[in-house]
Amino acid sequence: MSTTAYLEAVRWNDDGLVPVIAQDWKTGRVLMLAWMNAEALRCTVEEQRAVYWSRSRQNLWRKGEQSGNWQRLHDLRLDCDGDTLLLAVEQQGGIACHTGREHCLYRRLEGENWIDVEPVLKDPETIYGRD
Amino acid sequence: MSTTAYLEAVRWNDDGLVPVIAQDWKTGRVLMLAWMNAEALRCTVEEQRAVYWSRSRQNLWRKGEQSGNWQRLHDLRLDCDGDTLLLAVEQQGGIACHTGREHCLYRRLEGENWIDVEPVLKDPETIYGRD
Repeated sequence: MSTTAYLEAVRWNDDGLVPVIAQDWKTGRVLMLAWMNAEALRCTVEEQRAVYWSRSRQNLWRKGEQSGNWQRLHDLRLDCDGDTLLLAVEQQGGIACHTGREHCLYRRLEGENWIDVEPVLKDPETIYGRD
Repeated sequence: MSTTAYLEAVRWNDDGLVPVIAQDWKTGRVLMLAWMNAEALRCTVEEQRAVYWSRSRQNLWRKGEQSGNWQRLHDLRLDCDGDTLLLAVEQQGGIACHTGREHCLYRRLEGENWIDVEPVLKDPETIYGRD
């Protein structure tokens, strides 16, 4: 992998990763949080789509590869400390979450309980196994 | 610290932390990413303001304690996997970033360079030392 200055500007953690917030480019909805290593970031920039690092599978994760629900890149930001990325994306299929919901942040604290407050738009069984 | 079910539902990492996205409750602007441990989350809920865990200082961080730019809690979400939190907050003073900017995600990738694209609203020297 060739390194470039924009990759070196990122403060990768001890595992070589940074947290990445994906946000809908139009609505501002926060869709999910995932992780990237340098190669994932380079692929994201080159392919203009979100490519994450799957910590559970320990490999590159081209979001939507199975489901078709990929994320077109519109804007990419780095924070003040260099250790967080923000992607503005166009979510294909309108579903970012592997549960079949629009986004992953669907459990709201009400009193002392987490309550699901967003509808399942598509049965995950019909989307894939699991993204 | 008394534990409650909503704290136990969170999948804390090996350091006992989760990443927390703070978002402006009205505009949807992503303000910053920070971290919480269980005590910080409990304080956030009880005090209805953002209380983070400072990884650099290794202590509870009541955002805005020095600067006055604290964050009133409006909504609190947990993601599908239980390992990310999203706060919808009302940012006091209109400045979330210690650089004096509205938010921390102000470096945009243009070509292969990170470019500052948000104005400094207030000289950080006049805000504090550093939040």
